[in-house]
Amino acid sequence: MGPLQIKELLNTSPEKQTVTLKGWVRTKRESKNAIFIALNDGSTIHNIQAVAEPGQFSAELLQTVTTGSCLKITGQLVESLGSGQTVEVKIDDILVYGTADPDTYPLQPKRHSLEFLREIAHLRPRTNTFSAILRIRHALAFAVHQYFNDGGFFYLHTPVITASDAEGAGEMFRVTTLDLNKLPRTEEGNINFKEDFFGREANLTVSGQLEGELGAMALSKIYTFGPTFRAENSNTTRHLAEFWMIEPEMAFFELEDNMDLAEDFVKKVITYALTNCKDDLNFLQNRLAEEEKSKPQNERSLPLLEKLSFVVDNPFERLTYTEAIEILLKSKPHKEKKFQYPVGWGIDLSSEHERYLVEKHFKKPVILTNYPREIKSFYMKLDDDGKTVRAMDVLFPGIGEIIGGSQREENYEKLLGRVHEVGIDPQNLWWYLETRKFGTAPHSGFGLGFERLVQFVTGMGNIRDVIPFPRYPKSAEF
Amino acid sequence: MGPLQIKELLNTSPEKQTVTLKGWVRTKRESKNAIFIALNDGSTIHNIQAVAEPGQFSAELLQTVTTGSCLKITGQLVESLGSGQTVEVKIDDILVYGTADPDTYPLQPKRHSLEFLREIAHLRPRTNTFSAILRIRHALAFAVHQYFNDGGFFYLHTPVITASDAEGAGEMFRVTTLDLNKLPRTEEGNINFKEDFFGREANLTVSGQLEGELGAMALSKIYTFGPTFRAENSNTTRHLAEFWMIEPEMAFFELEDNMDLAEDFVKKVITYALTNCKDDLNFLQNRLAEEEKSKPQNERSLPLLEKLSFVVDNPFERLTYTEAIEILLKSKPHKEKKFQYPVGWGIDLSSEHERYLVEKHFKKPVILTNYPREIKSFYMKLDDDGKTVRAMDVLFPGIGEIIGGSQREENYEKLLGRVHEVGIDPQNLWWYLETRKFGTAPHSGFGLGFERLVQFVTGMGNIRDVIPFPRYPKSAEF
Repeated sequence: MGPLQIKELLNTSPEKQTVTLKGWVRTKRESKNAIFIALNDGSTIHNIQAVAEPGQFSAELLQTVTTGSCLKITGQLVESLGSGQTVEVKIDDILVYGTADPDTYPLQPKRHSLEFLREIAHLRPRTNTFSAILRIRHALAFAVHQYFNDGGFFYLHTPVITASDAEGAGEMFRVTTLDLNKLPRTEEGNINFKEDFFGREANLTVSGQLEGELGAMALSKIYTFGPTFRAENSNTTRHLAEFWMIEPEMAFFELEDNMDLAEDFVKKVITYALTNCKDDLNFLQNRLAEEEKSKPQNERSLPLLEKLSFVVDNPFERLTYTEAIEILLKSKPHKEKKFQYPVGWGIDLSSEHERYLVEKHFKKPVILTNYPREIKSFYMKLDDDGKTVRAMDVLFPGIGEIIGGSQREENYEKLLGRVHEVGIDPQNLWWYLETRKFGTAPHSGFGLGFERLVQFVTGMGNIRDVIPFPRYPKSAEF
Repeated sequence: MGPLQIKELLNTSPEKQTVTLKGWVRTKRESKNAIFIALNDGSTIHNIQAVAEPGQFSAELLQTVTTGSCLKITGQLVESLGSGQTVEVKIDDILVYGTADPDTYPLQPKRHSLEFLREIAHLRPRTNTFSAILRIRHALAFAVHQYFNDGGFFYLHTPVITASDAEGAGEMFRVTTLDLNKLPRTEEGNINFKEDFFGREANLTVSGQLEGELGAMALSKIYTFGPTFRAENSNTTRHLAEFWMIEPEMAFFELEDNMDLAEDFVKKVITYALTNCKDDLNFLQNRLAEEEKSKPQNERSLPLLEKLSFVVDNPFERLTYTEAIEILLKSKPHKEKKFQYPVGWGIDLSSEHERYLVEKHFKKPVILTNYPREIKSFYMKLDDDGKTVRAMDVLFPGIGEIIGGSQREENYEKLLGRVHEVGIDPQNLWWYLETRKFGTAPHSGFGLGFERLVQFVTGMGNIRDVIPFPRYPKSAEF
């Protein structure tokens, strides 16, 4: 649908056929014998080179052909004599759709900092780096849908606006249509949320899991893939206020099946990117190498493609939390008191501990299981010892936890007990509890933060650079 | 991944091989010679029949095998002698995962009203009707992603939380982390939104279009597919407060290309459902026929599959708004004063007018174009006459407008003029306006309300029944 794109034209055999190019000028170069215009339409990282003869076009026209201007070029597709491309276009005609004044257009052909580009997020998809990231992000999203569709999962659209708090914690965004200047009050002087749009307090969801479980207890295998929200006031390179989560939930899956699925899933999705995004990944690999040039050799990361292939080719190491603590207690950094945080059974592993396990000890992705119940969510299935739960975290080099999941507690009494323990009002979750009353079954699921995956695959250090329009404290521009 | 599902087992050749079934009991029937259990796992509309001999299991066990209970059955896959299925399972062993007390389980095998099922939305996916709808919804969503991926479009995740109002109208939900009981005030006594999470007022998006255009002006072809929100206090069968929208935006597409894409897109997606959801569509077709039994013959709708094939097989009628008004002015209902609302150039067509054109006059889907500028959005491209804009609405039988789109105004001065005219502060849209300053190009796009499409394909009358957990005034349960 629509005209042939540059990606297709670059793979078309040149037979002097007339072709039409539409895209944005990346660079224009004039030599004695020719004028070279590098045009890009976002379909690929590669530009197509269009060539005109000196004097073929008026100086007036050529003046408007500048970086960022948008052109329609008609010409002949011919073999390229220059290096770096197999075809080029001998220009017959140029139509300038839109100019880009070199004095004000911010994306001149020079190095821009990622910080600066974040301020012009409306234009940064026109850069090589961000177009590559967005194409890879698309490919990963498609691979997710394809993987689950092929596996007999149903995509379930769980609600964004919710009156429940899945995690029993976490700061949430309030959603309201009340006039803040004229808040309705009850007789007792409290805000009367009965007059709010939903007749009660409502928030943006932090997870679709609980509703996802409802779907799994009817359709067997479902997944969600939608936006989720955290109102944490944290300015880090790993957190967004609005991010996309993928949450499969499966009836009849126990912890072992859950781990198998998580490992297979993430490997297949990365493999899809390796197969379908070669050029973009190569570009980002070079970008990363360039960025790390100033670092000492031993602090540089693996080349991007090598890192991805490594994850795809090797089985993840699986061990229990208890075994992990034993390894940490015997570790050199622990003995030499190099860890910032203490190690001991019951602690919530910190990033330094996870990184030691993944990057130093096992040197590959790790799945940790059977965590102490106290540090995990109420809905996780209790182990027989009553001390641990059937949780699993998948830890990746560089980014730490990429997947968190568990077998869910399917026993009504045990689940209700945990709900009480953590201080949730069971009335708020009556519908969740009822799935354990009526036809309950063993079931499991996990969540993967999509942006963490895109970060891992693109090698980008800041999560704000892998989503088109990032939302974080004090920032909702665009 | 995971055990073979009932959908697969029903298509497996029976060779007395040992199989495992996991699912929920739909019905149990005991005769003199056998006990029949119909089991469903949500993978298909069809149940698998499992058969035991009388006396094979204790009365105690069989008492817990009731509608809604969850079982694991081991047995042999054999040819079925009964009608309606080719295979059945001769039971060796039954494990009851979870019971469903017949006195309290609400989904007993009898007819339930859609209204009642809405109140138990956590359980309704276990019914034939809702599992069929959710499977079709999944198939349509997958078809959307596949269509755009095949067509070289990139999936762009536009933000849900936004500080701008795409339509310059529409009631929006406020998003805030301010403590409503202690609202911070400025010196002037106004609410100080600088202290809110984003440092300004923020809302839930009503459309991803404006951000989508930014993507198209870099990547050429993008689409969004995400939740959008309207805080309209309307209790209709056509509106939700939270719904999913699909919005492709394409650089270098003019109105004609936009129409071609919209028609091809909706036909391909419906074709995918026709090919992949035969059994579910047949079930829903029968449901609909049953529902309409009491209606007089001439008020009944076309059989569902016939209606869908009709849309897929026939070219949509394309005409201008002006031509449509002429047809309406000449129409019988207009002459006989049967229309409730007056007809004349400049009116916003009402549902009765659209239905007349689609259902009576052309008897097929219609694309209306070139609407008066006054009744359309500021971002639509002005026609040369200055009176109309390059808008297009796709109208479907039964549901009316399913797609709304336009060529976008790419001229900076004209766009700015319209922004002023409709009273939007241009500073709020500086980033949108800049795409017309730097490398502007002709471009187009449209929006399709996903639930409207699901309604059309499933034949469901109420939009609340085609999304798992509907959000509408006074309702945010589950």
